[in-house]
Amino acid sequence: MSDLPYLLRSENICRLEGGKILIGDRRVFPFTRRFETCSTVEEVALALKNMVTQGGGPLEVALTTLVHVARSKASSLTIDDLKDAARLLIESRPTNTTMKRVLGELLTLLAEEKRNLAEHVEVQVSQILHSFSELYEQLGRLGSTLIGERSVVLTTCFAEHTFLLSLLYAQRDGKQVSVLVPETRPYLQGSRLTAPSLSEMGIDVSIITDGMGASCISQGNVDLYMTAADLVCMDGTVVNKVGTLANALAAHAYHVPYHAFSISPDTTKKSASDVQMEMRPASEVTRCMDMPTTMEGIKALYPAFDIIPPALVTSIVCPKGILQPDQIQRSYT
Amino acid sequence: MSDLPYLLRSENICRLEGGKILIGDRRVFPFTRRFETCSTVEEVALALKNMVTQGGGPLEVALTTLVHVARSKASSLTIDDLKDAARLLIESRPTNTTMKRVLGELLTLLAEEKRNLAEHVEVQVSQILHSFSELYEQLGRLGSTLIGERSVVLTTCFAEHTFLLSLLYAQRDGKQVSVLVPETRPYLQGSRLTAPSLSEMGIDVSIITDGMGASCISQGNVDLYMTAADLVCMDGTVVNKVGTLANALAAHAYHVPYHAFSISPDTTKKSASDVQMEMRPASEVTRCMDMPTTMEGIKALYPAFDIIPPALVTSIVCPKGILQPDQIQRSYT
Repeated sequence: MSDLPYLLRSENICRLEGGKILIGDRRVFPFTRRFETCSTVEEVALALKNMVTQGGGPLEVALTTLVHVARSKASSLTIDDLKDAARLLIESRPTNTTMKRVLGELLTLLAEEKRNLAEHVEVQVSQILHSFSELYEQLGRLGSTLIGERSVVLTTCFAEHTFLLSLLYAQRDGKQVSVLVPETRPYLQGSRLTAPSLSEMGIDVSIITDGMGASCISQGNVDLYMTAADLVCMDGTVVNKVGTLANALAAHAYHVPYHAFSISPDTTKKSASDVQMEMRPASEVTRCMDMPTTMEGIKALYPAFDIIPPALVTSIVCPKGILQPDQIQRSYT
Repeated sequence: MSDLPYLLRSENICRLEGGKILIGDRRVFPFTRRFETCSTVEEVALALKNMVTQGGGPLEVALTTLVHVARSKASSLTIDDLKDAARLLIESRPTNTTMKRVLGELLTLLAEEKRNLAEHVEVQVSQILHSFSELYEQLGRLGSTLIGERSVVLTTCFAEHTFLLSLLYAQRDGKQVSVLVPETRPYLQGSRLTAPSLSEMGIDVSIITDGMGASCISQGNVDLYMTAADLVCMDGTVVNKVGTLANALAAHAYHVPYHAFSISPDTTKKSASDVQMEMRPASEVTRCMDMPTTMEGIKALYPAFDIIPPALVTSIVCPKGILQPDQIQRSYT
């Protein structure tokens, strides 16, 4: 997928080089293009914990780290070596359920291999990465069909491959696309990751602050709202970065469709009541790019994710197609 | 009103000292407590244009500047001196219609004074400032009655005297009050002005980012939403800082009441169609406290105000009482 911008090209997310694991550091992008260099699984787990990468990044890093372990141990590799590594990696990001699920499935598969385990790791990881790449393209194609001839698309945070490919394909189909990107505080993924990536792809983009989405929608300046989904429940509930709900409510109030992308709706989650809300450190809200934004001692709250009720969701773009929220259950069980 | 926090005490908004006009610099608060020192009306106009103060600040600065002009010219003062000064001050902040109206009314009154003009300026300005002070107290008392025994209040931006006094009086009445303050990008008035002021007043306060209001409301963590109103139209439409609408939509969706404070609903504005939307420089959105938040060359939008339809407003707290939006017209005409 050479069409992807710098940040989403596989080699810039994570790669093996000279016996080290290199992880693209999204915390300092676009101001600096640097890689965190790790020699051990422990170092990778710490890097993941420290948010060097996010979104789909941790899974790709974890898979690449298993290849690193396999190459290091070579013929002496055992399934327990892989399990130990996977456990450390999964523990580094407890809310990344996709990483947990995919690594779990991979280990189950590998546990059945009695010979050439290291080789099997390479083959399986390569297959998984390839299948994700194909899913991204498929969802990107689907998403592009939802974009009209002249469209302003509002998003939230950094919706990665599926969203960016949707825009790219829409533009290639001759559609005039503009994107409004909320800066997405406190980490500024919108300003730092989404906007530079869209700009690199030649797609018209403007940043707004997180309070301006409803304003733009109410003034008739938004044609559709599209985000990633960190989680989709079987009843069509969408869980995504905090800030997603405010825009979904505004979209609903002003009859603007809201579409969420999901590689894999979670068959273990029935509805919102099965979702645990993650609270992150308040200190992140009272700083911006490491500078204090208020007086010392002032408290803050950081609910990390929003739960968007199915009634606010127009469709979920997933491997089974463009589904309405109430079609998820029967399509995935 | 010695109950007020540092930022809202009259002497810290603006004062005359040693023949100079000192304006409290809200741009650097709470990190630095500094005053912009001006010797001429031109310098004051430039300070206002450069956003040294905001909200109710510019009006108080303009009135104090007229006193400065009166004292400087003393017995040689003419009504044209005052008109020239007022014109410069009004032009420095074209969207501050309250300043324009109050200065206009003052000049009409003063134009009738044939003798001791300078003295009349002092008396009239003093009366105006006193009447505002009384209005703040009145609205603060009214607002406090809307706050329940144990309440979490969400706000937006820096709602100044009326809002802060409402909370103070509620707390003094024995109510347990907590406030959630969105940081209010791009200027961070919430983090820099509102939160430190509430903290100084001994009121429990937590900062959230601008995308988190809907999240907090949806989780049942907000009992009421209260903001200032830069403008209230005769049909009950509220105009306020961008970000207000997103929270008002969320409040409405989750049955949380929304109350807006207004010293003076604008009898010249019938409805939203009479309101001009102000777009401010995009460069403010792509920076935070003077640091770039994105790659150079990336565009941004900065709609400065939100228009909140009357259907989303529970009540307007104004000198005529706690009115429902559809009561404004008949109460003010």
